[in-house]
Amino acid sequence: MNSENDYAKYVKRMQQIADVKYSIAVLNWDQETYLPRKGAEARARQIATLTGMAHDLFVKPELEELLESLNENQNLDEDERANVRETRRDYLREKKYTTEFVIRMAQATSESFNARLQALEENRFEIFLPSLEKMVDLKREETKILGYSKHPYDALTDQFDPGLTVEKLDVLFADAEKQLLPLINNIVSQPKQVNNFLNKVYNKQKQWEFGIYLLKQMNYDFDAGRQDISGHPFTTSFSPHDVRVTTRIVENDFSNMVWSCIHEGGHALYEQGLKNEFYGLPLGEACSFSIHESQSRLWENCVGRSFAYWKANYAYLQKQFPENLSTIGLDSFYKSINAVKPSLIRTEADELTYHFHIFIRYGLEKKLIEKNLEVKDVKEAWNESYLRYLGLTVPDDKRGVLQDVHWSHGGFGYFPTYSIGSFYAAQFFATAQKQIPSLNGEIEKGNLEPLLGWLRKNIYVHGRKFTSEELCERVTGQKLKFSYFMDYARSKFAS
Amino acid sequence: MNSENDYAKYVKRMQQIADVKYSIAVLNWDQETYLPRKGAEARARQIATLTGMAHDLFVKPELEELLESLNENQNLDEDERANVRETRRDYLREKKYTTEFVIRMAQATSESFNARLQALEENRFEIFLPSLEKMVDLKREETKILGYSKHPYDALTDQFDPGLTVEKLDVLFADAEKQLLPLINNIVSQPKQVNNFLNKVYNKQKQWEFGIYLLKQMNYDFDAGRQDISGHPFTTSFSPHDVRVTTRIVENDFSNMVWSCIHEGGHALYEQGLKNEFYGLPLGEACSFSIHESQSRLWENCVGRSFAYWKANYAYLQKQFPENLSTIGLDSFYKSINAVKPSLIRTEADELTYHFHIFIRYGLEKKLIEKNLEVKDVKEAWNESYLRYLGLTVPDDKRGVLQDVHWSHGGFGYFPTYSIGSFYAAQFFATAQKQIPSLNGEIEKGNLEPLLGWLRKNIYVHGRKFTSEELCERVTGQKLKFSYFMDYARSKFAS
Repeated sequence: MNSENDYAKYVKRMQQIADVKYSIAVLNWDQETYLPRKGAEARARQIATLTGMAHDLFVKPELEELLESLNENQNLDEDERANVRETRRDYLREKKYTTEFVIRMAQATSESFNARLQALEENRFEIFLPSLEKMVDLKREETKILGYSKHPYDALTDQFDPGLTVEKLDVLFADAEKQLLPLINNIVSQPKQVNNFLNKVYNKQKQWEFGIYLLKQMNYDFDAGRQDISGHPFTTSFSPHDVRVTTRIVENDFSNMVWSCIHEGGHALYEQGLKNEFYGLPLGEACSFSIHESQSRLWENCVGRSFAYWKANYAYLQKQFPENLSTIGLDSFYKSINAVKPSLIRTEADELTYHFHIFIRYGLEKKLIEKNLEVKDVKEAWNESYLRYLGLTVPDDKRGVLQDVHWSHGGFGYFPTYSIGSFYAAQFFATAQKQIPSLNGEIEKGNLEPLLGWLRKNIYVHGRKFTSEELCERVTGQKLKFSYFMDYARSKFAS
Repeated sequence: MNSENDYAKYVKRMQQIADVKYSIAVLNWDQETYLPRKGAEARARQIATLTGMAHDLFVKPELEELLESLNENQNLDEDERANVRETRRDYLREKKYTTEFVIRMAQATSESFNARLQALEENRFEIFLPSLEKMVDLKREETKILGYSKHPYDALTDQFDPGLTVEKLDVLFADAEKQLLPLINNIVSQPKQVNNFLNKVYNKQKQWEFGIYLLKQMNYDFDAGRQDISGHPFTTSFSPHDVRVTTRIVENDFSNMVWSCIHEGGHALYEQGLKNEFYGLPLGEACSFSIHESQSRLWENCVGRSFAYWKANYAYLQKQFPENLSTIGLDSFYKSINAVKPSLIRTEADELTYHFHIFIRYGLEKKLIEKNLEVKDVKEAWNESYLRYLGLTVPDDKRGVLQDVHWSHGGFGYFPTYSIGSFYAAQFFATAQKQIPSLNGEIEKGNLEPLLGWLRKNIYVHGRKFTSEELCERVTGQKLKFSYFMDYARSKFAS
């Protein structure tokens, strides 16, 4: 009897905290889409205050007592137990932070977000440097607050994917590097026809409409979301019934919009597929950032860069932009969108060289957090890495160290989830193909419903019931194996 | 020493509360501009939770102690004393509410906001009725919570304009009705040329651009604000550096957009003119809703419907819409935009019959709050009033009882501030004209800076330092006098 009350009390408290967190998400969404220039300062303090309040609500001793009592409770059902277990994990981490630290971090985040924007405008890393130094100091402080057994960076990755460590990443990424390099070198060494039709002028309004068309075809629910424009595309959620995506449109870079739409659409389908009944509870949240990224990449790459997908969509695309595409056949188009070539911008990279962008960032982040690299030297180190790994000279900061929003958000430890996400995506997609023999044929017809149904049933509905590793094993029968990605890459690129 | 600390503590607390309140304003802005349909339910609970939290923060006993001690403190300067005095007034009112009531009201507000939208869509008042009944019950309950000496409605008007009562309103509105009626009848009885060029098709995008042009001319700062589209135009503020307006655009009703832009622009200039150093404090807030409305109406009517204003802008307007306006002279245009004619929609009414829309709503609201009218009968009472006062038959609910957003927001007691605002506007504008002899000439040249400067200096910067009545006396040398409005009306319309 009492235990039921306890669980209801716990739910009520968690949903109240969710209300505050989702409000912060609205403030952030607005900050990145519509905020007028002079509004940045007040917005920073508003976000900081709410962040502090959400933290305060969460770390109240009453909640700890409730969680400890529920943790012992034998009368909870499986879902309830999973919610309590995950909230308890969050609680034990969150209570390590003082409110003061949380507010300081939130304030620093908004400030450095704006500092980076300014630096971008003037194309000068030095403008961003003081904020980034402050941020890296805060992140170093955070690793001490959170604690770790082997490497301080583990404290950061653990937030995005519980259990992910430098030890695992070093092995996985070294293996990936070793296997990817010969494949890439082989492709790059082959002569190819250059046709830059993707960089012709594509009318912005028509690009926008084509993006909306793709999202609708993916069954993204526009009654439970919307798309807007922002500097850096992202997905955010204020409930499973309000999941928003953003994109950016560059007139002479059509690919930029298309694959960011599909990518963010993949994130959004996951959020829209979470159970609304678990609003504010762990089972109403995505499993981990790695699994989240697996969903965006599955849609972006395994689907959105497949021959089957464009067999369904290319004729329609040609009709939208006959001036650029009427003379380009489906085969050439497919080859072009899958061209492998080292490049400067992560978000525009092909599926193979992409991971080197991640390896570079991972290496720099580790060193920054270890204090083996000073923040003031990170630009030079960045440029050196691009030369060494990708053979490229970085011409300016915009196309170098300033290109990503992540550091200005304090998102250290996040980048690895992008590669891990791709690897999970290949493994999930191979499983889906095996379990739905007609999958490819349906995609060729533009019917993405069977795939979505499979993802909903196997991944979305579980929320945080399982860890990334457990979920992967449950869905695919195996732990994460890099060979799935290599099989996918070879069959697509080595032919 | 200690007193300085006390004041700093008070400021810190107030600014924290402001952060929460402005966050609520962001959630509301998003709700009325961009919220996807299915997101309404979660948004309602998010707003309710934050509203409860803002209330809780405000009514903490520590703040009361601080305010009582600061209230006795002799070392505060004039501005500090005014801040403490006004916060204390707010505090004494706010602590009458329980958190439970505040959350219930916020939840009911969001629900009824959405219920009205649905009712509008189906053009059926009955869909809105249950929510409105709940709302009126809550407002009646609120009058008891707040208390009043003479009339329950006073408890509501007092929130929007401290000191405004039914007793004052009854006298003022009866006088206004008596004086306006013969003027209106005289105008309406005269024969006129009908030319409906204002209701031709005006391209929406070009309307939008013209609205932006007008706002820029008014010196609305787009770096500290933005305009968006919403169902009902409004102005909202998240700090003096982020003041947003909305408009609506109807293809065959050009006036709708133009004067709502100027009207909301007037509100926005006031908010942008508040001192940022008083963020979160009464001196950083507008004096009252009546004075706020005086600013929107001064711009909308005294300026935006004046001959001088269109002398400056009409040629440019003609150039934007030559298909509709090239054959229409400035004189005809001016006459058309100032045509007096009873009509169904408040926001589209002329400057004279407008007040009858207010008198009708004021009468109905009073009766609803007194319990002399059942909510289920309000539609019939509305329609009867329109027939009696304006001689009009209301054809459907959309153009009748459902037209205003206010009741669905719980804004009972608000409508009177619209008429009072117009009366103040006439008095302020007459004073400005007297004090700046070149004012009319500058407006004719499209230079609105001198007027804005005068308003900033005399009205905006003071925040809530003075009551409406004190401010009026300070600026114009007299208490609010209806004769200013009648002088303005006669000189404009009786000629």
